[in-house]
Amino acid sequence: MSAEIICVGTELLLGDILNSNSQFLAKELARLGIPHYYQTVVGDNPGRLRQVIEIASLRSQILIFTGGLGPTPDDLTCETIADFFGVPLVESPEILEDITQKFALRGRVMTPSNRKQALIPQGAEILPNPTGTAPGIIWQPHSGLTIFTFPGVPSEMHRMWQDTAVPYLKDQGWGKEIIYSRMLKFWGIGESALAEKVASYLNLPNPTVAPYASKGEVKLRVSAKASTERQAKDLIAPIEKQIIEIAGLDYYGADDDTLASVVGQLLRESGETLSVAESCTGGGLGQMLTEISGSSDYFWGGVISYDNLAKVALLGVNPEDLAKFGAVSATVAEQMAIGVKTRLGTAWALSITGIAGPTGGTETKPVGLVYIGLASPNGKVESFEYRFGVGRSRSFIRHLSSCSALDLLRRKLLIRES
Amino acid sequence: MSAEIICVGTELLLGDILNSNSQFLAKELARLGIPHYYQTVVGDNPGRLRQVIEIASLRSQILIFTGGLGPTPDDLTCETIADFFGVPLVESPEILEDITQKFALRGRVMTPSNRKQALIPQGAEILPNPTGTAPGIIWQPHSGLTIFTFPGVPSEMHRMWQDTAVPYLKDQGWGKEIIYSRMLKFWGIGESALAEKVASYLNLPNPTVAPYASKGEVKLRVSAKASTERQAKDLIAPIEKQIIEIAGLDYYGADDDTLASVVGQLLRESGETLSVAESCTGGGLGQMLTEISGSSDYFWGGVISYDNLAKVALLGVNPEDLAKFGAVSATVAEQMAIGVKTRLGTAWALSITGIAGPTGGTETKPVGLVYIGLASPNGKVESFEYRFGVGRSRSFIRHLSSCSALDLLRRKLLIRES
Repeated sequence: MSAEIICVGTELLLGDILNSNSQFLAKELARLGIPHYYQTVVGDNPGRLRQVIEIASLRSQILIFTGGLGPTPDDLTCETIADFFGVPLVESPEILEDITQKFALRGRVMTPSNRKQALIPQGAEILPNPTGTAPGIIWQPHSGLTIFTFPGVPSEMHRMWQDTAVPYLKDQGWGKEIIYSRMLKFWGIGESALAEKVASYLNLPNPTVAPYASKGEVKLRVSAKASTERQAKDLIAPIEKQIIEIAGLDYYGADDDTLASVVGQLLRESGETLSVAESCTGGGLGQMLTEISGSSDYFWGGVISYDNLAKVALLGVNPEDLAKFGAVSATVAEQMAIGVKTRLGTAWALSITGIAGPTGGTETKPVGLVYIGLASPNGKVESFEYRFGVGRSRSFIRHLSSCSALDLLRRKLLIRES
Repeated sequence: MSAEIICVGTELLLGDILNSNSQFLAKELARLGIPHYYQTVVGDNPGRLRQVIEIASLRSQILIFTGGLGPTPDDLTCETIADFFGVPLVESPEILEDITQKFALRGRVMTPSNRKQALIPQGAEILPNPTGTAPGIIWQPHSGLTIFTFPGVPSEMHRMWQDTAVPYLKDQGWGKEIIYSRMLKFWGIGESALAEKVASYLNLPNPTVAPYASKGEVKLRVSAKASTERQAKDLIAPIEKQIIEIAGLDYYGADDDTLASVVGQLLRESGETLSVAESCTGGGLGQMLTEISGSSDYFWGGVISYDNLAKVALLGVNPEDLAKFGAVSATVAEQMAIGVKTRLGTAWALSITGIAGPTGGTETKPVGLVYIGLASPNGKVESFEYRFGVGRSRSFIRHLSSCSALDLLRRKLLIRES
């Protein structure tokens, strides 16, 4: 038993809109534990829609249509479905009454084409639309096949789904089994390296473990199927614990955690403060830190020392060292960190100086070369060299730089504590 | 002759991500004039993927796959396609060399699973991936059927599409009638207000003009259909000129222009420099300015004065005024702007202080109250009060604050010059 999502609309084929309906329905099906293997998009064309219905009705038992229920001649979903199953359309007095009332309430004139929206396949139940004019249907054209239709307008579809379709599906016995997921997040390890470390978990039946990678970070989604959220969590907990142990310090958090929120939490626990000095990231590290509400408890601010003049005037970087080693150097990164730490009197300070590109790289200092400085409460200052590589965008190199700085401090705070 | 988009990935079936790849490819196919009638999403399952390939290869002549090219065992697109057409996979020395080099450049260890990414169907051409490790293919398994594969990572896919797939398709004769668009961008006016001002343009047949709104900014897309880009541009130019005249100062740029790039261009022209002092945006304004390569020519840096201590220590804000008027006040905004301007010796300085929420608001100083300070080359300092409103997210209020600061300076630079 599985469901299939079929979105009808030429605007999707033209790329005019993002298919957010598919994502909404996919999440909902997962939540109810209804397996779902295919999504199809097809235009407002009866021949091609018929073909899609034929394929879908052979491989899936629940077909969920969105779009093509409007009053215009190119809205063909309902009549094409009825025609495919050889069932006539009948006018529903109940829907007609509802549409007539809605037009009266809004002070608008009902046109003959609106009357078309009252036609449903004989034997279908109405799926009421409280906010718009086009109702949907719930229909079993034959045993073992259930069809839902929804308008394409996301807000109307969401409401109808929650109000009518979900209770209907629960009555059919769905939603007894739910899928609950945790997204584990890692920094400082590649997707393939992590996948190899946790290889034995990637073939588990329940919970399942699947790797994802995005913007320099790797994630593992741990999903359990169970009859209650509590049970699903109990299935996930031991696996999560084992994976976290295997990953060690590369694991940084789960679900809504970000590197900035995790660093913030660690600083809050130790009662310490942080300041930053940013060159190539130009404020991006500060922005990440302050994206967290309440970050003023531990983040005091910093300096955007984009020009060398700012490095000297606001951070006290030695102009001779700037000339000798260059702005992108371990020495300058260290002086930037000490400079901001001293001026703001924070426990910790992070600094970033690098070549974000696309221009400005040289043979010895290529695009992607970044130094991160870290000044510690004990007065020690260290710097770390990163090579984020040519060919990556300016924006990605800056993102990697800010994240790596946060990750550096995160590891420092954790190692000290353990 | 028509194309079909097939997105492979269980994360799409779970609703974890929005299918933006389909939208991108749909737009691109429309731009090239390639008909496109179906989109399919299928999970990382070889049996079901095979079935999808079978259906698609019978009804479409160009199959475009995204996703499932990664190094992990559940990445199966390439081998399933080869298997379906009964063609063996062969290791491409060229791809292996490229992957090896990329790992070396990034200082990461290549694992055996990465080697899998060098396998392509015998006879397929390589579709190079300049930014990631997984290459795609262009392959004609038999006459009348062309297959493209792309990784699922949008940035990699976009680049590969533009660099290799588009030239290939143009060689095949596509793209003779093209759609060319300009996106005109506005700040400081709402969507409906702008739509009313340019109402007479919204029903034009060619070029068409359509309004969009996103993240506080309004855009008008002007699209022309013609046989050459030159002809399309000639159709667009007079309409664009008229719209810009109607919009006045609310128009700020087109296409890739951002408020930061436009401000940068104006500063570059006047040979002046800028510094910033940020409280509630925490570095976001600096980040926007430095997103532009070469911004060091006019942007010298600034101070993230998140805590009051930083406002006093790094900007010389008067502690008595801080106590009397509060950190979120016109007085403090002005002192912040003067403070950073004086310390860095720039021609202009912008400052931002406000309540980004969700907590920290009071009756008299609600969430969304923001003061922006602007210090000018003539020694004058002004401040402007914004009320971005309760109910908006912290992240959106911070974004509006940074954009409004840039817009303020943009208008100042333009008015002075005209």
